[in-house]
Amino acid sequence: MPGYVQDDISAEELERQKALYGPFTQAVRELVDATIRTEVDDDEVRAIQAEVEALTARLRAQQLDGPYGVRFGATGRGRPWGNSVVGLRNAIAPPLMIDHDDTGRAWSDFHLGAAYEGPPGLVHGGVSALILDQMLGEAAGAGGKPGMTATLTLRYRRGTPLGDLRAEAWIERSEGIKTWARGHVMDAEGVTVEAEGLFILPRWAREAIAAHRAAGGDGPATPTPSYFE
Amino acid sequence: MPGYVQDDISAEELERQKALYGPFTQAVRELVDATIRTEVDDDEVRAIQAEVEALTARLRAQQLDGPYGVRFGATGRGRPWGNSVVGLRNAIAPPLMIDHDDTGRAWSDFHLGAAYEGPPGLVHGGVSALILDQMLGEAAGAGGKPGMTATLTLRYRRGTPLGDLRAEAWIERSEGIKTWARGHVMDAEGVTVEAEGLFILPRWAREAIAAHRAAGGDGPATPTPSYFE
Repeated sequence: MPGYVQDDISAEELERQKALYGPFTQAVRELVDATIRTEVDDDEVRAIQAEVEALTARLRAQQLDGPYGVRFGATGRGRPWGNSVVGLRNAIAPPLMIDHDDTGRAWSDFHLGAAYEGPPGLVHGGVSALILDQMLGEAAGAGGKPGMTATLTLRYRRGTPLGDLRAEAWIERSEGIKTWARGHVMDAEGVTVEAEGLFILPRWAREAIAAHRAAGGDGPATPTPSYFE
Repeated sequence: MPGYVQDDISAEELERQKALYGPFTQAVRELVDATIRTEVDDDEVRAIQAEVEALTARLRAQQLDGPYGVRFGATGRGRPWGNSVVGLRNAIAPPLMIDHDDTGRAWSDFHLGAAYEGPPGLVHGGVSALILDQMLGEAAGAGGKPGMTATLTLRYRRGTPLGDLRAEAWIERSEGIKTWARGHVMDAEGVTVEAEGLFILPRWAREAIAAHRAAGGDGPATPTPSYFE
């Protein structure tokens, strides 16, 4: 599985890291929001910039050479902590906390603030696309039909106001390595953006599953990412 | 124009603000990247978190009630500084610096780091959608055919590696209030994601243009956003 790392961390270690990094990333998200909206004077902006740079230098005293990747611990659960929509460690992510069932339905209630703006007071159309790409992919994976996005179509019914929103996604149908999923973003008044996507299980994943079964394993090869972020 | 604010800042004031906020936001982008990749120990993470929270409190001592919106100064140029793809003040934006000509072509060379990850080492498919939504909309606006995204279709040819990338977009055709645009993301090897979109000039903009012309004005009503972020 190219780039997916099994690092065998225990469930306890997982919880320790979540408790450490979750609030830290959330603090950085708040800083991102304040960076857009602040009206403090120039000297204060420059002073705060210098302090941000100093904090970054401290963090980089020891860091990964590259991006976070996607990791699996002893529990087999994926940790897409660098993911732009759901990443526990990614301040770009709102983040979405996505629930799913094994019929291939996924849903999430979330809040989008100033950082996600496109037209004034509305969510950037591309941010809706970003969110729905993740949601549809997770629905496919949750239903046991993971894949990478092959095509994605968005239909924008009306502007999506910034604020409290909900996204839902589900599997429409599946044929072999192909899965069609649909979903939408909605506010309190109803659907604002609809999406449909085709997801295809990549060759390397098909080969891994085939090899696993040839060796006598049941079901899909593990660890298999439940979805391709 | 709902939410678009004309605040009459001079060209000099514009440059002053760009020189102040540009580097500040860039410092916060670097912090976002370091937040994903750091491996410093737990006590150091918590200490840095506390300092980030203190900086946010200082920024919030005086801030906008809500998002940045889109503003126009005396020069008539739009300032979408809160925009998720191009916003000078938005640490979520890479940012893309987008060039365009008046035939409706737009292009940008940019770099995507750890914050834009989906599958390991690859750009999140939804991030490509976010970027192409902005690019196609800017192409439409640059060609004098602005509009809000009505539909957007992405075709993912292969995974897009994180790193140095290029995006291009152009107007395919235009009929009245509708404009079809196309574009793609590419790496050094070629195209990775293709997009096509339909953009529609919203009713309020059509009415503003009609009112302007009825009052004897030439061309489009000003200030009119050249694109709808």
